Amino acid sequence: MAQLTNDIYIILDMIGTFVFAVSGAVAARQRGLDVFGIFAIAFTTACGGGSIRDLCIGAIPPSGLTHLPYLLTAFAAALISMVLYSWVNILTHPVLIFDAVGLSTFAVAGTQKVLAFGFNYEMAILLGITTAVGGGVLRDVLLGRVPIILRREIYASAALAGAVIVVVGKHFDFHVDIISAIALIVCFGMRFLALHYHWNLPAFGLNKNK
Amino acid sequence: MAQLTNDIYIILDMIGTFVFAVSGAVAARQRGLDVFGIFAIAFTTACGGGSIRDLCIGAIPPSGLTHLPYLLTAFAAALISMVLYSWVNILTHPVLIFDAVGLSTFAVAGTQKVLAFGFNYEMAILLGITTAVGGGVLRDVLLGRVPIILRREIYASAALAGAVIVVVGKHFDFHVDIISAIALIVCFGMRFLALHYHWNLPAFGLNKNK
Amino acid sequence: MAQLTNDIYIILDMIGTFVFAVSGAVAARQRGLDVFGIFAIAFTTACGGGSIRDLCIGAIPPSGLTHLPYLLTAFAAALISMVLYSWVNILTHPVLIFDAVGLSTFAVAGTQKVLAFGFNYEMAILLGITTAVGGGVLRDVLLGRVPIILRREIYASAALAGAVIVVVGKHFDFHVDIISAIALIVCFGMRFLALHYHWNLPAFGLNKNK
Repeated sequence: MAQLTNDIYIILDMIGTFVFAVSGAVAARQRGLDVFGIFAIAFTTACGGGSIRDLCIGAIPPSGLTHLPYLLTAFAAALISMVLYSWVNILTHPVLIFDAVGLSTFAVAGTQKVLAFGFNYEMAILLGITTAVGGGVLRDVLLGRVPIILRREIYASAALAGAVIVVVGKHFDFHVDIISAIALIVCFGMRFLALHYHWNLPAFGLNKNK
Repeated sequence: MAQLTNDIYIILDMIGTFVFAVSGAVAARQRGLDVFGIFAIAFTTACGGGSIRDLCIGAIPPSGLTHLPYLLTAFAAALISMVLYSWVNILTHPVLIFDAVGLSTFAVAGTQKVLAFGFNYEMAILLGITTAVGGGVLRDVLLGRVPIILRREIYASAALAGAVIVVVGKHFDFHVDIISAIALIVCFGMRFLALHYHWNLPAFGLNKNK
Repeated sequence: MAQLTNDIYIILDMIGTFVFAVSGAVAARQRGLDVFGIFAIAFTTACGGGSIRDLCIGAIPPSGLTHLPYLLTAFAAALISMVLYSWVNILTHPVLIFDAVGLSTFAVAGTQKVLAFGFNYEMAILLGITTAVGGGVLRDVLLGRVPIILRREIYASAALAGAVIVVVGKHFDFHVDIISAIALIVCFGMRFLALHYHWNLPAFGLNKNK
């Protein structure tokens, strides 16, 4: 793996960590948590998905737990979210927007890490999606909310698209930076447009309010 | 481990994967999820318990994530559940019936896998139960329902019975196929009869509606 | 690691296992679970946090799953809680008090185990907190309650204080028994006083009832 690729992988991981931590901190503050709880949820949202991935590929210890930059990034994001809360909150649905950025970067970076560890394409796609949605699912379960992944807008399917593009690029040996950029744009674009236009996958309206 | 035993282990695992995926897909559809969400919940229900078991015994990567047959079986089950939903739904409590079949096969197959990895009887029983109930617990937590394991009908105790029978059979070196059959019948029988006759373990009626 | 230290580590672990199992059993009984469910929640509360820690440090199999004393201690605690329920319940908020004892012992023992495995201070603190709060979070999520960690009294911050004291003591090579005693007293004291005087970390009252 070239140095440039490795750098991009680290940068994507840090961006995802930052924005997922923001989404976690904002959600935790909206829920009325104390300062410690906000930091805890921010960190869990940021590093939860990647930690599950690392456990599944045997990358012990999980990088989010042992490399200080992840913790510092998550805490900085939580702090900024708290200080600039009124500004962050001006954005419509800020949690959803930051969540979409994190979704994209983690789907791409997570898929690349699993491939770099030598696992097969199925693992790479499944754990790429897990990296992307795991932290958000943990955030929502811990906050007692129905996970965002269950709401009907296109969400995990955007992560799937990003992961598949990375795997296809790897299979045909395309340039990894270009593939990463395409995967990021497609994944974020799908999620953002789905939010904006309320696109949905087909669903079955039975007992929805149960 | 003889070839026949190994084949039975694989067949049990596939049956459990299929029926748990059906139970997940039906529950997800009842909850109004989109197509992707139905596939995701089906796969999580099918492979969640086994993945937790594999992480605990160091079987990296978890077989559910790396062997395509599990994914394809879960997806086929989800697809069939969606297409034949009105038929599947004719059965009274179809989720509960499929859940009971998955519970039995996973309790037996999970216990056998832990023993095959050379761990002790305690591990085998605890992780046999985990294999059996883990996917369903994840399904229910993700769907925002109180886990079925908490409802009062005999549930995890049926998995316990199946796991104990497998361990006792191993201890006394009984023929594994016969033991598996007995364990399956006892586990499914306990769960089915408990559902049918509303058998319950003793409970304490305090604050039940809290 | 000297024998005495090792003994203290084991004793702390057993005390934590016992009291967390009591907190789990009481909470499960209050929720109206059957006997098996009470045992299951007691064991999960007692061994959940430590098992997550063990998976993250590669301590396979997790000690809670393979060493019979943990299981027996958790079951004895559950049994005692059921038999002496009316007595246990006389205490105001018994779940909270037992929870506080478990929080302290697990924070200290968990941090020490991660350090003993040779991981860095960040891992030790994060996984010390995880050991302390993980079981209780699993208990609350499984019982469909908002995790106690999210209520506003000082909770995880007490675990943080205990973990940091252990790490500082290790860094300056202080006597481990004295450090453990200090960490235990500070952690339990913070949590108990916070409960008693309703101390809170600063929080933001927005949308708290959402």
